[in-house]
Amino acid sequence: MRTSQMLIPTLREDPGEAEVVSHRLMLRAGMIRKTAAGIYTYLPLGLRVIRKIERIVREEMNRAGAQEVLMPIASPAELWRETGRWDFYGKELFRFKDRHERDFCLGPTHEEVITDLVRREVRSYRQLPLNCYQIQTKFRDEIRPRFGLMRGREFIMKDAYSFDRDEEGAKRSYQSMYDAYHRIFTRCGLTFRAVEADSGLIGGSSSHEFMVLADTGEESVVYTDDGAYAANVERAELPPPIDAPLEPARPLSKVATPGVGTVEDVTAYLKMEPHRLVKTLLYKTAKEVVAILIRGDHTANEVKIKKVLGVMDLELADANTVMKSTSAPIGFAGPIGLQQVRIVADYAVKALSNFVVGANEVDAHYLDANWNRDFAVEQFADLRNAQAGDTALRGTGTLKVAKGIEVGHVFMLGTKYSRSMNATFLDPQGHEQFAVMGCYGIGIGRTAASSVEQNHDAKGIVWPAPIAPFHVHLLPLSQSAHVTHAAQSLYDSLTEAGVEVLWDDRDERAGVKFNDADLIGAPYHLVIGEKGLAQGTVELKERKTGEVKRIAPDVIPATISALIRDRA
Amino acid sequence: MRTSQMLIPTLREDPGEAEVVSHRLMLRAGMIRKTAAGIYTYLPLGLRVIRKIERIVREEMNRAGAQEVLMPIASPAELWRETGRWDFYGKELFRFKDRHERDFCLGPTHEEVITDLVRREVRSYRQLPLNCYQIQTKFRDEIRPRFGLMRGREFIMKDAYSFDRDEEGAKRSYQSMYDAYHRIFTRCGLTFRAVEADSGLIGGSSSHEFMVLADTGEESVVYTDDGAYAANVERAELPPPIDAPLEPARPLSKVATPGVGTVEDVTAYLKMEPHRLVKTLLYKTAKEVVAILIRGDHTANEVKIKKVLGVMDLELADANTVMKSTSAPIGFAGPIGLQQVRIVADYAVKALSNFVVGANEVDAHYLDANWNRDFAVEQFADLRNAQAGDTALRGTGTLKVAKGIEVGHVFMLGTKYSRSMNATFLDPQGHEQFAVMGCYGIGIGRTAASSVEQNHDAKGIVWPAPIAPFHVHLLPLSQSAHVTHAAQSLYDSLTEAGVEVLWDDRDERAGVKFNDADLIGAPYHLVIGEKGLAQGTVELKERKTGEVKRIAPDVIPATISALIRDRA
Repeated sequence: MRTSQMLIPTLREDPGEAEVVSHRLMLRAGMIRKTAAGIYTYLPLGLRVIRKIERIVREEMNRAGAQEVLMPIASPAELWRETGRWDFYGKELFRFKDRHERDFCLGPTHEEVITDLVRREVRSYRQLPLNCYQIQTKFRDEIRPRFGLMRGREFIMKDAYSFDRDEEGAKRSYQSMYDAYHRIFTRCGLTFRAVEADSGLIGGSSSHEFMVLADTGEESVVYTDDGAYAANVERAELPPPIDAPLEPARPLSKVATPGVGTVEDVTAYLKMEPHRLVKTLLYKTAKEVVAILIRGDHTANEVKIKKVLGVMDLELADANTVMKSTSAPIGFAGPIGLQQVRIVADYAVKALSNFVVGANEVDAHYLDANWNRDFAVEQFADLRNAQAGDTALRGTGTLKVAKGIEVGHVFMLGTKYSRSMNATFLDPQGHEQFAVMGCYGIGIGRTAASSVEQNHDAKGIVWPAPIAPFHVHLLPLSQSAHVTHAAQSLYDSLTEAGVEVLWDDRDERAGVKFNDADLIGAPYHLVIGEKGLAQGTVELKERKTGEVKRIAPDVIPATISALIRDRA
Repeated sequence: MRTSQMLIPTLREDPGEAEVVSHRLMLRAGMIRKTAAGIYTYLPLGLRVIRKIERIVREEMNRAGAQEVLMPIASPAELWRETGRWDFYGKELFRFKDRHERDFCLGPTHEEVITDLVRREVRSYRQLPLNCYQIQTKFRDEIRPRFGLMRGREFIMKDAYSFDRDEEGAKRSYQSMYDAYHRIFTRCGLTFRAVEADSGLIGGSSSHEFMVLADTGEESVVYTDDGAYAANVERAELPPPIDAPLEPARPLSKVATPGVGTVEDVTAYLKMEPHRLVKTLLYKTAKEVVAILIRGDHTANEVKIKKVLGVMDLELADANTVMKSTSAPIGFAGPIGLQQVRIVADYAVKALSNFVVGANEVDAHYLDANWNRDFAVEQFADLRNAQAGDTALRGTGTLKVAKGIEVGHVFMLGTKYSRSMNATFLDPQGHEQFAVMGCYGIGIGRTAASSVEQNHDAKGIVWPAPIAPFHVHLLPLSQSAHVTHAAQSLYDSLTEAGVEVLWDDRDERAGVKFNDADLIGAPYHLVIGEKGLAQGTVELKERKTGEVKRIAPDVIPATISALIRDRA
């Protein structure tokens, strides 16, 4: 394709609206444009990237035996009412009515629609297993859409749904998708990690997230170097402490801590390390207030706390409640002398003695508190976020932490949906059984954006070859007949060899062309100048390394074909 | 692909919901399923057809120099308010609000969104012409969704928008799309006709519809055999009559026509041909009542009447208005003695003399009325629908009529949208100019459905090879090792040769397999039986003709490859 015939509105300046690298660079490279908050138009270059990712996804889903279907975007409310998600989903669901006042939503996911299809079409165990996928536009009315393609309100997803005869079959389907996802993200040229994840709103019993590793990622994952354990921080389990003798208890004493209520301030004031302090966090559930004890240098994990308390709703108590429960303002709560409040402590507290806690009175803390002497802990449990240096549940060594971007998610759903929508089949004995389901998503646009987060430099994007909009950016340095002829001839021979070429045929200065080429990020640049041609060579530059080679034009197609094959 | 691994829920019985052939057969062949009224899920076989049509469309759009983009489905109301279409569109527009109460619609078409993009990104005449297209899901809240993919509420469209420097350029863009559409529908294997059309709601100065010809079509088109003229009946222009001397006027006489008010009844009662009667139709516009005279065997064309009267709103007068204007009930209105009502007559009336008209009194008509003697016609004009046998505006011979299905539409838009949204560019002299636009649509799902309307028989669908879900349906007649081995070997060699094969590997009776194969409609069936194999042959059946040949398996791949190439 010739640049002069494509809509590639590159920008020299960083657009104000962009907060993250991928958003900024995809705008600047003329790949996307905002139509409304969280709603984008894909321009020709951006769409080429999307289509390449879709193609890889499609090939690997087909290879895994999944079948492509296409379900509607408009989803009738009746189906969502059957599973209870019409009410459950809240404001994230875009809702509308048709001219007959019937309720619809714009599908954020398609469990209801596919389960409805399967309950109508599948009668017998002979029709199972079945795995249907689609690549379809999805909607989610994010409270704060941002980061370009990373967190949009309208976005392209691949979603797949498996139906099996039993748990064993469902596990095989899950594994097959897990493996397909590995192949997909590998083929996309991404550095990623599959981590154990929480299954969140979708429900179900087991799930993994596929995280593209990038410093700019919003999520944190922990892992061991040997690969034996990897999990989202939200979900990462920590083992109980090894029983070891505690330091002998010293006498409890109260100390004035005037005006210092945060961990930082208290420990600074007392000249001690934060891990010698235990925070007392008061949480409200639907029926009571609970005190959660967490070591000063750790952070509470509310997903884990909910699970241990067996509650759906949990929030930090407000100032009034704290005052009522502890007789002190926030910052001075402590477990000693606490009345009518259950105390649940993180495992790490169990290994501590002679620690600092709030005194339940303003401007005071206790020194040398001991859980086995001064107050009663109802239960020790894993209640905190994992952090670097923690002991791993499995694997050797301690946990490391990385930032990541979730691009894929695989879930074991069990019979949650088949049961609520009565999707049954007859087993070989003629008994009705619920299909055992799994669901599997990949954010197509987000995969593109996360690739940019992972692969860029100060000058622009550095696409991995398999998802680059073009393989080669052809950059003639003049409009002379000689150079143009050489460009045309290279364009033809590369195209013939199956290499995708973007030919910058504009009458622009070399600097403008180089800047745009670096911004757009094709993996290889071919620079054609008079001087080189006189010596019988053109310049082949690798975008990633900046390495330049002078090569004779006639060997270029074979050279680049080989490079692309190696990288694909 | 093996049938046992695909979701192809064929139905033996005609489903009750289906009114037209394509809907019925696509349901029965397991290609689509209804999710809600006018909203369908594409199952694997149906989606394969859609993807093939999309691919042909994409290749031809690219070849015509159009660029693929993807605009969002959710379209912000602000843009639609700029062109006035937010109010104009009425109930066909699906509307919704986001969580911040901002108005959106589900795009039925994308003039506003693309014009907004172009006004932001295009500054100079050097960036024009520009033609952007997308293949995207569209929405229209039809009052009566029906006929499966033919008239849905959610449907897949290709829409393209061209922007040019001037009218001349816009005409070239239009012609280039017109030519591309010819190539697209030809490549899809369809019999079609491009006809002059009315541009309807979208607006603009000129348009053509691409009609797939099928007896079940909802629209009527007229054409000359030599191809010089073709138009939608709504739009087909008729020439003024050739001036010829009229039959000498006979004296006017009144005749009793008790209780007969329709053309049929009056002419039967008077024992004469309907073309000797002139209907007087009273229409109400916003400001007056007008009498329109139409020959008894012709039908009024309200699109033409509006144009001639220069009005937007037009409706047939109700009984009260007719009584007030003519002093007689409906059925007895006539032009003679009519007070304060303009009379406008169709061209065909001009060639008549001594005709019958209503007498403006109950149960009475005049015989031998003459327009040049008995009443004053303000204007003669083309006011009726064309019909078979009419003289064509261009071309030789008389008009023929065919039923058709609109699958594509090309429009010259002029500056309607660029003006209302202020999409300007700087011309070479540095003056601001409005871009001159065109828009071009193809209904992808409707193209699939119209192909079924045109290509089917009593047993099922007969797909044209280029858009068939598979080229070959492989039908082994037994599960014996010998037959299965031959099937596997044919499957492999055909796949290797690039032929798409659906292999019915189910343990079903031959009759069941044959019925399903006829229903699904792959162009070639390969039947493998013990007997044939013993003689070294398999049966190759052409679905369309039913013609059967016995062929040695080893020449099959070359034979079928050649057949498919010929048909593509």
